[in-house]
Order: sequence, then structure tokens, then C-alpha cells
Amino acid sequence: MNIFLKILNLEKKLKYIFKNKILLLQALSHSSFSNINNEKLEFLGDSILNFIITNKIYEKFSNLNEGEMSNLKSILVKSTTLTKIANKFEIYNYILLGKSEYNKKKYIENSILANSIEAIIGAIFLDSNIKKVKIIIDNLYYDFFLNIDNFKNTNKDFKSLLQNLLQKNKISLPKYIVLDNIENKKNNYIFLIICKIKELHISSYGIDKNKKKSEQLAAKQMLQILNLFNLNYELF
Amino acid sequence: MNIFLKILNLEKKLKYIFKNKILLLQALSHSSFSNINNEKLEFLGDSILNFIITNKIYEKFSNLNEGEMSNLKSILVKSTTLTKIANKFEIYNYILLGKSEYNKKKYIENSILANSIEAIIGAIFLDSNIKKVKIIIDNLYYDFFLNIDNFKNTNKDFKSLLQNLLQKNKISLPKYIVLDNIENKKNNYIFLIICKIKELHISSYGIDKNKKKSEQLAAKQMLQILNLFNLNYELF
Repeated sequence: MNIFLKILNLEKKLKYIFKNKILLLQALSHSSFSNINNEKLEFLGDSILNFIITNKIYEKFSNLNEGEMSNLKSILVKSTTLTKIANKFEIYNYILLGKSEYNKKKYIENSILANSIEAIIGAIFLDSNIKKVKIIIDNLYYDFFLNIDNFKNTNKDFKSLLQNLLQKNKISLPKYIVLDNIENKKNNYIFLIICKIKELHISSYGIDKNKKKSEQLAAKQMLQILNLFNLNYELF
Repeated sequence: MNIFLKILNLEKKLKYIFKNKILLLQALSHSSFSNINNEKLEFLGDSILNFIITNKIYEKFSNLNEGEMSNLKSILVKSTTLTKIANKFEIYNYILLGKSEYNKKKYIENSILANSIEAIIGAIFLDSNIKKVKIIIDNLYYDFFLNIDNFKNTNKDFKSLLQNLLQKNKISLPKYIVLDNIENKKNNYIFLIICKIKELHISSYGIDKNKKKSEQLAAKQMLQILNLFNLNYELF
């Protein structure tokens, strides 16, 4: 396939048409291929990805604490996650490597694949704007953020759903702990429940005046978080 | 001063009027003061600041390499830099601390000041948008980015300026190294010159068909970079 058809092909996958095609070529160029390569675009793209993912976590999981948000973020932006995204989009077909790098190994290194995803994000930002990049990152992370919103308005028994999922994956069951019960003016209590899965080092929260509802909310959030770990823990 | 006058006062300094004043109060609240505090806003603000500063470096210093860009960035977003910014804006007058934290020490810890700057950036983003935050960060970093553009269209002898500045600050003089001289079609050479200050671990570049002009351009960029180090190295 010639380079122009290749670009068209990748643009279709990314769901983004570059105004400046050279930017996409630069994002795909490893330092072994050209002096003008993707290193700086990767540097820029990394900061954009971090911002967009942090903002997404802040919006979607507002009741996690700062440490847990930070934990989630590092899973979503780490190199192995980016490599998985690169492989899903078959980026290995498009990377431009120098001959020496081709001869050295039969496969493309994971770090090269991961870096190219960041570089592509940087290139799209320079070619458009931050709003557009947000949409493209949603496309790249589609598998990770899939179904999060689906949990929203259902009345399922989230505790049972969670229990089944964990048992199926041989992970020890969560503990529900009453963190705080706050008495309000009318002598009603508000229950803050934490749902903790020790083995995965994650916890989630639920808050309601009804204790059982609090537990359900905590279980629901845990299911949403596990959904993000989708490809990472191969849970589903 | 009551809390409302304080908010007005800080908004004037920040050059930003909050639609939702509670967001600003949250950004100023240390965990010792309230359960709803600035930890999550700081987490969000950190990623925004990183993105905006990275983008700025990418725009202003496009001919640095990735490692040097990364080096510059870490200087601009590190805790001591943020503390300096916080002190310039007298953030210590506005921080909300719990009584225990007040009694413990007579002064507010630097890390609390630095974190509050990131939290304020996060709060402004939630209250507005990324474009507005960019303007506010320009205001916060005014001293650092001051004069960078002033170098643009002058015909000064940048090599001498740089030499004087370094001598005045007892820093060893730079080395100018010809990195590459590329022959073009008309048998003219293009000189790529690197200006290296070993002591400060920074280098800059100049490129022109005239060797002396290349050196001048490299010196000019070095002056621009040193300008960013302004408060850090107390050079000026």
C-alpha cells in the first residue's frame, strides 16, 4: 500500500482527517527514520492526554478521593495501556522506522507503539484544537470508557452483579464499611459506605440516607471502575 | 477583612471573577480545614498546568530538543516555582487552614502554598474553560515569560549580552559548537550552532546560512531561556 493510501486508511481509523498531513507523518516517524521525528509531538501529546484523562476521571468519578483518582489515571495513561490501544488501531502498520531498527528485530517495540499514540494526539492538537482532541481520545479509549454511562439509570442489584463478576474472575469479594454516619437536623442519618477490594487496591463510595442504597451506590461505582480496567485486568 | 472582601481582593489579583465563588473557597481550603477541600482540584489543576506550560514551551522554543523541553517544563511546574508564584500573589493571606494546622506552626508550609496554585487553576477551569485558564496562567507566570518576545526584533549583540550576564552572575561562559553544516543546492552552507552552558545543563540552537548569525541566534535563544529561569536562578 502506498503512503497516501496508508494515511487515508489510518485517518479513517482515527476518525480524524488531517489538514496538514505532514504532521501525521511526523507523528509516525521514529528517530531511527528521520531527524524530524515524533519525539517532541510525543512530549506535547503526553501532557494533553494526561489533562483529558484527568478531566474525564474528575467528571465521571467525582466521589473518589484524590489518591484513587490518581491511581485510575496512571492505569489509563501508562505505557502498556497505550500499547494496547496502538495494537487495536494496528499502528504497527503505519510506523516509519529506519532500516537499522527494522533489521534489528522482527517486531516493533511496545514503547515505540505507545509513544506514537501520544505523538498522534499531539499532532491532532496542533492540527485542530483541544475540543477535537477530546473527541479523538474518546475514540481511542472507547473500549475503556464503554458502558460507564449505561450503569446510570438502571435499578439493578449492583451488589450481586459485582459479586458474580468477581467470583467469575476468582477475585476475593469486597468489604462494605460504614465510613461515617452523619446525623442531620431531622435526626436522620446519612450513610457514607466504602466498598473495598483489597486484592485490586481499589475502593469506591456510596452516600445516601438509606444504608442499603449507599451500599448499592458503592457497588455500582465499583462496577464502573472495573469497567475501566477492562483490558488491563481482562476481567470481562 | 471578611471573607467576601478577601475573595474580591484575590479575584482582582488573579484577574479572574468566579461565577461560582464556592469553587474558589474550595481551592483555598486545606484538608485540615474541611472534608471538602482542594485535593481533587489540585489533581485536576496539575494536569492543566502541565498541558498549558508544555504547549507554551512547544510554541516558544520549538528548536529545543525533547529532553531540553522536558527540562524547562519541570523547572516551570516544580513545587518551588509554584511557591514563588503563590508568594508573589500573597496566597498565604487567603488559605483556609484548620485550627490545629495554625497552632502547629507560625507559617504556612510551602507545599500547601504550591498546591493551592494548582487548585486555583483547577477551579478556574471548572468555572470557565481552557482558553480562559491559559490567560490566567499567563498572568501567574508573568515574571517568567516576561521579555521573551522582546528579544524578537532587536538587532542587539546577543553574544555579548549573554557573556555579560553570565560573568555578572559568576557562571562559566558558553561554548558555541558547529553541530552540522549542510550544503544546499547552490553550494551554500547552512550552519546549525549549539550554544552550551555546561554549568546550567542547558543548550540552545541557532540556524542560518551565515555562521556568525547562527551564533547570534543561539545566544538570543539562550537569553530567552535564562529569562525563564529568572526567579529560579536569581540571575537578573
